[in-house]
Amino acid sequence: MNSGSNHSQSKKKVLVLGGDGFCGWPTSLHLSNVGHEVIVVDNLSRRNIDNELEAESLTPIQPMGTRLKAWEEVSGKKIGFYNVDLAEEYEEFLNVLETEKPDTIVHFAEQRSAPYSMKSPKHKRYTVNNNLNATHNVLCAIVESGLDIHLVHLGTMGVYGYGTAGMKIPEGYLDVEVKTESGERVEQQILYPTNPGSVYHMTKTQDQLLFQYYNKNDGVRVTDLHQGIVWGTNTAETNMDERLINRFDYDGDYGTVLNRFLMQAAVGYPITVHGTGGQTRAFIHIQDTVRCIELAIDNAPGLEERVMIFNQMTETHRVNDLAKLVSEMASGEIAYVSNPRKEAPENDLHVKNDLFLSKGLNPTTLDTGLLQEVTEIAQKYAYRADYSKIPATSTWTKEQQPGIPEAKEEDTVQ
Amino acid sequence: MNSGSNHSQSKKKVLVLGGDGFCGWPTSLHLSNVGHEVIVVDNLSRRNIDNELEAESLTPIQPMGTRLKAWEEVSGKKIGFYNVDLAEEYEEFLNVLETEKPDTIVHFAEQRSAPYSMKSPKHKRYTVNNNLNATHNVLCAIVESGLDIHLVHLGTMGVYGYGTAGMKIPEGYLDVEVKTESGERVEQQILYPTNPGSVYHMTKTQDQLLFQYYNKNDGVRVTDLHQGIVWGTNTAETNMDERLINRFDYDGDYGTVLNRFLMQAAVGYPITVHGTGGQTRAFIHIQDTVRCIELAIDNAPGLEERVMIFNQMTETHRVNDLAKLVSEMASGEIAYVSNPRKEAPENDLHVKNDLFLSKGLNPTTLDTGLLQEVTEIAQKYAYRADYSKIPATSTWTKEQQPGIPEAKEEDTVQ
Repeated sequence: MNSGSNHSQSKKKVLVLGGDGFCGWPTSLHLSNVGHEVIVVDNLSRRNIDNELEAESLTPIQPMGTRLKAWEEVSGKKIGFYNVDLAEEYEEFLNVLETEKPDTIVHFAEQRSAPYSMKSPKHKRYTVNNNLNATHNVLCAIVESGLDIHLVHLGTMGVYGYGTAGMKIPEGYLDVEVKTESGERVEQQILYPTNPGSVYHMTKTQDQLLFQYYNKNDGVRVTDLHQGIVWGTNTAETNMDERLINRFDYDGDYGTVLNRFLMQAAVGYPITVHGTGGQTRAFIHIQDTVRCIELAIDNAPGLEERVMIFNQMTETHRVNDLAKLVSEMASGEIAYVSNPRKEAPENDLHVKNDLFLSKGLNPTTLDTGLLQEVTEIAQKYAYRADYSKIPATSTWTKEQQPGIPEAKEEDTVQ
Repeated sequence: MNSGSNHSQSKKKVLVLGGDGFCGWPTSLHLSNVGHEVIVVDNLSRRNIDNELEAESLTPIQPMGTRLKAWEEVSGKKIGFYNVDLAEEYEEFLNVLETEKPDTIVHFAEQRSAPYSMKSPKHKRYTVNNNLNATHNVLCAIVESGLDIHLVHLGTMGVYGYGTAGMKIPEGYLDVEVKTESGERVEQQILYPTNPGSVYHMTKTQDQLLFQYYNKNDGVRVTDLHQGIVWGTNTAETNMDERLINRFDYDGDYGTVLNRFLMQAAVGYPITVHGTGGQTRAFIHIQDTVRCIELAIDNAPGLEERVMIFNQMTETHRVNDLAKLVSEMASGEIAYVSNPRKEAPENDLHVKNDLFLSKGLNPTTLDTGLLQEVTEIAQKYAYRADYSKIPATSTWTKEQQPGIPEAKEEDTVQ
């Protein structure tokens, strides 16, 4: 497994907002491992949502105190921690900035599940309120602090939507031609027109406008990473000690498509394909996520430079093809179920990702046998699974149906 | 003065959110006058901000209870009222929807001052939190209620920014051509790329994304009105009784440019032009605002129709030309002061407004002698003015300076 460079170009002080989550935790360890000074800011909201949904990580994640102690024992490096709610506790966060004076902030601190964001009016409202206030508070505090901080934000491929006019999706900015009154064609480069597929994705399109504005008015240096669906569980660093294990979500709200298939196959549950499975999505392995963040930090935009946008994905696949791949690999049975989402049943997806490749990313792809690794993790911790939490039950409107396999399938389980 | 039609095409039940404000109040009276059943929802935040800023309306506006009683006496029509904070009191608002079952909601309920939104981190954060949660709560509650409600929202010309590639600013959607991988040109119509000039304007660009999403996912019917700078004070209805008088803001935060010039000239204060005055802006008279809302209600988009966007403005003017016009009309002295805003010193602005003209709008323009009317109102209530509140002191960054005339000017005042 390629764990990236051994040391980063220059040692920086990095705040990782949301550093307790699925992407945030392995990123915090990786940045610490390559030599950055890392401080996590997190209100533990993801663990609290586990409580609400009565669905835990399949892997036995440890409390933050245990995680940080284990990392120090294993690596000799300390990671700091502040429990702050970014959407609600602005003054506390400003104090962290003024005390720590970071060079870089990596911002993962948003509610990141599309199904969770569509569960009910309460969940829609929480996602909008939490995500937009968190991102705005971060920007506002950077300006108020007067510090020159590079902000690296986790966006999503979902801001683009999943259809194009026939061109590859560019990295953030689209070249267009506009006709003037005199009929002349003028070239313009614009922020790619957005087409979000859920309230969650919508908040990330709104985040983009926050970045554009604070970049224009206050010169805040921002890198926005439009990430594909993350698969895999562990990285070089989380593998160093059982207590450092990363979370693995398998429930209908937080379990993402490829990991969900692998877990379903591993525990003998039907591989549930929503609709025809004709949806094409972009993917990236968690090991590449942490490497991309490292690269984004090392390649900060300059002063006066516009928001830098990278497409953080390494390959695209049709969902049905993934289901078949996992089915063959792990002898799982595919169940075609209702699609709880309101979306096009089929789409093509062609995405540019030249920027990260040019900076040195060496992608971990599905064909490198890593799928097996995830299956092994799922098998190892299968005893912790609550199968009733597997189906996707959050529907986009009253017209959609939950993605529950037929009863005969459930009988075969366990 | 053209007060619009005497009765609307069909009588509807209309909630006016923010119906106590500068645009909301005369709109409520006008809609009531033309035969709609009107219910105001307002948390009186604008009056509370008056308290905070220690700056009152120049005109002696009456409490809501007095206003509604006066309207009933004058017109024989009742307007309902709920005091609800849309950003914070979701359940209360949902109850209003379920109780009243309106056909139409007119949504003015956002913090609407650019300078106020830039005053401090607290004011930036209030504007983002208040405006985005208010708009999202309205959409979320419409969906939860299950009612087919047409939402008419007050946007701003400021979502477009004040520069173009050489074409007139279209009504919301821009025709562009995109080159495909094979070099072919494909025509697309996209939401006009935004370029907001303040945190306030930014929230309205984010509102647009809320509308697009809820229209796509839930079929909510939305009309978004990108309004220019409103001038004038009274309408046919607010003129019917002294107790119905509309508010007139002259302070540095809420006083808009043309009304501010007229007031300054009327009370003998220098006409303060920010920078060179080369900025070009779009304008509309308050009488036309209320007529446009009436037209928007009568011309709702159909089911399955995309968000309808109108440019709600009638003419464009360069700020310096307005200052000269007012100076000549009222013998005022112009003072060129620092520009507290971070913006281009000069810009052209060409805007399409065919949609409202095609629906029957007959514009009230600056050359119809109405400027004089505003000056008379300013003179009549000059005794209520606190001159210390006139300069614009909220700056966009630490680099900008407040727009305060030199001391010798202040000596001549009063």
